[in-house]
Amino acid sequence: MKYPPVHYHNYLEIEKLLSAQHPKSVEYGKPAHDELLFIVTHQTYELWFKQILFELNSVLETFQKSQIQEEEMGRASARLERIVSILKLIIGQVDVLETMTPLDFLDFRDMLYPASGFQSYQWRLIETKLGLRLGDRLAYNQSPFYKSLSPEQQTEMEEILNKPSLFDAVEKWLERTPFLQAENFNFWETYQKAVNGMFQDDINTVKNNPRLNEEDKAKNVAGLEASLKTFDALFDEKAFNELRAQGHFRLSYKALHAALLIQLYRDQPILQTPFRIIRALLDIDETMTTWRYRHALMAYRMLGQKIGTGGSSGHKYLADATSKHKIFTDFFNLTTFFIPRSQVPALPKSIADRMNFHY
Amino acid sequence: MKYPPVHYHNYLEIEKLLSAQHPKSVEYGKPAHDELLFIVTHQTYELWFKQILFELNSVLETFQKSQIQEEEMGRASARLERIVSILKLIIGQVDVLETMTPLDFLDFRDMLYPASGFQSYQWRLIETKLGLRLGDRLAYNQSPFYKSLSPEQQTEMEEILNKPSLFDAVEKWLERTPFLQAENFNFWETYQKAVNGMFQDDINTVKNNPRLNEEDKAKNVAGLEASLKTFDALFDEKAFNELRAQGHFRLSYKALHAALLIQLYRDQPILQTPFRIIRALLDIDETMTTWRYRHALMAYRMLGQKIGTGGSSGHKYLADATSKHKIFTDFFNLTTFFIPRSQVPALPKSIADRMNFHY
Amino acid sequence: MKYPPVHYHNYLEIEKLLSAQHPKSVEYGKPAHDELLFIVTHQTYELWFKQILFELNSVLETFQKSQIQEEEMGRASARLERIVSILKLIIGQVDVLETMTPLDFLDFRDMLYPASGFQSYQWRLIETKLGLRLGDRLAYNQSPFYKSLSPEQQTEMEEILNKPSLFDAVEKWLERTPFLQAENFNFWETYQKAVNGMFQDDINTVKNNPRLNEEDKAKNVAGLEASLKTFDALFDEKAFNELRAQGHFRLSYKALHAALLIQLYRDQPILQTPFRIIRALLDIDETMTTWRYRHALMAYRMLGQKIGTGGSSGHKYLADATSKHKIFTDFFNLTTFFIPRSQVPALPKSIADRMNFHY
Amino acid sequence: MKYPPVHYHNYLEIEKLLSAQHPKSVEYGKPAHDELLFIVTHQTYELWFKQILFELNSVLETFQKSQIQEEEMGRASARLERIVSILKLIIGQVDVLETMTPLDFLDFRDMLYPASGFQSYQWRLIETKLGLRLGDRLAYNQSPFYKSLSPEQQTEMEEILNKPSLFDAVEKWLERTPFLQAENFNFWETYQKAVNGMFQDDINTVKNNPRLNEEDKAKNVAGLEASLKTFDALFDEKAFNELRAQGHFRLSYKALHAALLIQLYRDQPILQTPFRIIRALLDIDETMTTWRYRHALMAYRMLGQKIGTGGSSGHKYLADATSKHKIFTDFFNLTTFFIPRSQVPALPKSIADRMNFHY
Repeated sequence: MKYPPVHYHNYLEIEKLLSAQHPKSVEYGKPAHDELLFIVTHQTYELWFKQILFELNSVLETFQKSQIQEEEMGRASARLERIVSILKLIIGQVDVLETMTPLDFLDFRDMLYPASGFQSYQWRLIETKLGLRLGDRLAYNQSPFYKSLSPEQQTEMEEILNKPSLFDAVEKWLERTPFLQAENFNFWETYQKAVNGMFQDDINTVKNNPRLNEEDKAKNVAGLEASLKTFDALFDEKAFNELRAQGHFRLSYKALHAALLIQLYRDQPILQTPFRIIRALLDIDETMTTWRYRHALMAYRMLGQKIGTGGSSGHKYLADATSKHKIFTDFFNLTTFFIPRSQVPALPKSIADRMNFHY
Repeated sequence: MKYPPVHYHNYLEIEKLLSAQHPKSVEYGKPAHDELLFIVTHQTYELWFKQILFELNSVLETFQKSQIQEEEMGRASARLERIVSILKLIIGQVDVLETMTPLDFLDFRDMLYPASGFQSYQWRLIETKLGLRLGDRLAYNQSPFYKSLSPEQQTEMEEILNKPSLFDAVEKWLERTPFLQAENFNFWETYQKAVNGMFQDDINTVKNNPRLNEEDKAKNVAGLEASLKTFDALFDEKAFNELRAQGHFRLSYKALHAALLIQLYRDQPILQTPFRIIRALLDIDETMTTWRYRHALMAYRMLGQKIGTGGSSGHKYLADATSKHKIFTDFFNLTTFFIPRSQVPALPKSIADRMNFHY
Repeated sequence: MKYPPVHYHNYLEIEKLLSAQHPKSVEYGKPAHDELLFIVTHQTYELWFKQILFELNSVLETFQKSQIQEEEMGRASARLERIVSILKLIIGQVDVLETMTPLDFLDFRDMLYPASGFQSYQWRLIETKLGLRLGDRLAYNQSPFYKSLSPEQQTEMEEILNKPSLFDAVEKWLERTPFLQAENFNFWETYQKAVNGMFQDDINTVKNNPRLNEEDKAKNVAGLEASLKTFDALFDEKAFNELRAQGHFRLSYKALHAALLIQLYRDQPILQTPFRIIRALLDIDETMTTWRYRHALMAYRMLGQKIGTGGSSGHKYLADATSKHKIFTDFFNLTTFFIPRSQVPALPKSIADRMNFHY
Repeated sequence: MKYPPVHYHNYLEIEKLLSAQHPKSVEYGKPAHDELLFIVTHQTYELWFKQILFELNSVLETFQKSQIQEEEMGRASARLERIVSILKLIIGQVDVLETMTPLDFLDFRDMLYPASGFQSYQWRLIETKLGLRLGDRLAYNQSPFYKSLSPEQQTEMEEILNKPSLFDAVEKWLERTPFLQAENFNFWETYQKAVNGMFQDDINTVKNNPRLNEEDKAKNVAGLEASLKTFDALFDEKAFNELRAQGHFRLSYKALHAALLIQLYRDQPILQTPFRIIRALLDIDETMTTWRYRHALMAYRMLGQKIGTGGSSGHKYLADATSKHKIFTDFFNLTTFFIPRSQVPALPKSIADRMNFHY
């Protein structure tokens, strides 16, 4: 009553929406039944991409602040989880599209040349805003991916590439994590001791194992020492920075430490929501990868070994992009530095207190 | 090369598509973050409804022919199965929409009054074209459902209501099934004998069961005789027609017989695809019902016991519609007339031969 | 090396696991191909039920404490969400089971009589531990549901029925919520003012609406006043307790208030995890309901209108149980007391401060 | 009544089933909450694998006959589709397992060493019975995969490896397809003409395209000629056999032809069910691949870059196995030889007649 009455049909702009499907095969007088499915599937993708971008922008805005109110964290986490939920849904759309057989696709495939899903501007935006850099991408037909975009889109994309991505903003946020350096407590020293102790125990167990001969013992000990060596990246900033320069890490030393702290002490009240945020970012990376992979498989099924609609061997490209276009790889690799919870040092009471509520 | 080059962006009319989302809350200067999700979810529904209608129309066209080429049956079955596949997908969209909490919905709910999903013209078309009749529907706010449609939509809906639906066309197709009456073989007589024999056996088993006392025997026998009695509907056309007049059946006697024949002898080559078609129709009914049900639950969660956006108690309406808006109910109920395959009479060779290929 | 080597096959007790499928149809010398699917589907259900119970017990243990450490809340929330995730998975198992047709089922259905899914002890445990009371259940064949259980199970069930359920424990936890009564701030007074103000505004809008005639105005105003009246339950403990005695509420007055507080101020750091817990409980209720409903639909499809394997009209029972066996109904109905966030009073700084971290 | 009464609990051997979960962490006195989830997830996998094997064996039995009754084809197709349905379900189980975080896994990971999903005998059986040969597999730790199995399992696996797989049986069945060589009609000649004509048209279109310069024309024509050249594999048995010897094809020349015929003329009544069977085999390959891939991603997430529980870099292995363990690759690649339906030669009436029913 406060607002003028609204009709479903007008509100959803149904007429506009449903008048945006024009199969090429109809235009050329050779109607191919399945072309509408092809169009509708891709249009629903794009609508969901718009929604993902909308959520992503709002999270980006939150994280770009120089200080984030704790009140905003629950919301940010919910919105990232919504993105995961949308991505899971659209992975399921592949099942629907696959009710179209390769022979049905052939009825109109040539008419779409050289259009290709690689040209989806919104998907590129999502990847870029999340933090995929130009150099992280597979070169597509020997030219930067955005050359297939319109001039306005290219300009916008270049601007966005030059702005901090969610990856960058999350990195800054992690670097600001308190508790990394507490007065009278050095967490990393304690953690390093725990790691060393654990490995030393393992080495002793091997050496005293009567079931192993000397050769096996030597082999096992060498393996353990190599594993321990990988922890240098965690405890030796110089070693870390060398590995980072070689591309083994993208996050800064400090941000990596904070991410590890959040993982190890995720039950602390103040870390519960940050932990969910990191998990949601991992989920986004993983579901985007799965989506690409399902598309690669489908493309393979649709096209066999022939060249794709986009002029490149589509499915090969997609399969490669699958593994290469990950963004929060550091969060995946962080696992290497975990030790069993029974060995993780307990937090000093003064720090645990600061991580808790006091009402 | 045969066709002018096409760009993804133009082909999918992305600009048009992505310029059709105008949240009311933005219009009124009180932006509610989740309204876009609400719009996008419903718009993707409508896009999928368009696709379902497209498939449905093509199947309807096939079935409305006075004679259907066997070549067309595989395609019809595939298209009905595609509809099932789309319906399963959009059931999953409820999970995405439910990432919006009731409190988020409240931020813009009043602005949409009295718009309501009940006004979706395409969903009504799908139901009507499948075979939902005016009288099968729950009255919505005491007036026929289509009064909430635009004048042109009402006119079109009335026309469609007067045309044969898929239910009607399938009924005619079933009635044309050959093999119902074969020279020198009366299937129904044989089947009736099998049914009677089976029940007589069961009754004897009860009577000779030393573990049962007389009272239990009488009770069990009475139950079996009542069950046998229900088969009258199958073997006695007059009894059937009375039940049909009372609304217990919608299909004609002949069509029901044909549907039963297809179910019982589904392995015969000529019945394999018809069997799939009946199964797909059952699946469509069941998934549409599930979709309505998930929406009823969601509406309940969003609105509590309050009145819905559409002015009626939405979730109650949806929950009722759930069970009432079934169309191929006869196919569900047919099960009552099945007997275990071991008891189903074998087809005479002459008939089995006619149901097979001879190359 | 620290532990004796383990083999996948032994660890998972594969031999035991895979030797627990004995189709009755094989036993009786009439092998029915689809009986194994029937067994495997139900066995995987039971394995998942075991997992759900395990998670549920751990959450129950946490909530039964007289004081819950904040550290435990993140974990409790994750475990409840895991239950939701399992329930969503097993809803999908219905799709697999439905690849069995009614005719296939008939090949062995009689051999299972009167076994029935209603006899699943674990499912009953889940419902009971969540908080479904004896009186909440539909009577099944005129006798309490647990009469179909074994004597030991009956004894255990009676014990559990007499212990606090998760519903009870959550209620106690809610009642302990601080902030409900703050020194120098009465939240409920403020909220009541906001509600009254909002409705008064609405009533004025109606009265001044030149598009409405007097009759419509009166009708609208009466509707608004009736809506406002429903808020009595919230603000008048006596009115609430009467409604509760009539079964309209199950939660205590104080617990309901706390639940509302958590919903309205879910962004406050200290309420973020409690909010997730309430949401997970709603999700559990909703997915259990959906699971029951899918089963009711499947039973209908398998059995038609005939009596079920369990001697009752299975699908009718299930369909009714669907709506009756909800547990956290109050959380669903709470929505009625929400007002748009723009109208929700801001928290006084002193309270907001206590809800936040201070490191 | 005909059969002794059955109780759900006994029928499903619930006690046996639910007493087969013994977490190592409990055995070692360091209970890790998430180990039960790990066990239950893998046990449900194994139960479903048993079901898949059961369906697979029944289909294998059908296809191993020297002549397959058409009556059996509908059933075989339904059972293959059931396998797809199960595989889709268990892909979803990854979502449930991923509610366990890497840190939770670490609590018991060492206790399971060197157990590994690679040791699942049933999964190996599924792959082998479908047609994965020893040489198709990635070597796992430098020794044949089955060395990690028990002696009895190794013996059984060797036997199965020496028997015809479903791939082999399907190949034989395809080779027996009638219609490949019809009296007075040579399909392949006609098809070759159509292919040549189509390419010649394309080449002419390029040559006469005023928008292209000479260099582009030459490049395009070369591309088309190279594409045409790939068809030699289809029309020249000698060329085909050379490619096959090099591993580009696995199916025989005749079987490949039959598969193509089925795809191109799938609407012919006699080819409708064979077409579904080929599609189901493609679906099985694709869903198994997706399942492996999801597991690879999960393993990566759980383990980071470290070595896997099985002593090898698990996720790398799985990711590679993903693409290498495909079985019906020829069906995927067949697409290369499709031409648009408008160009596919119509069947002579005499052949179309033989592919149809005559009742």
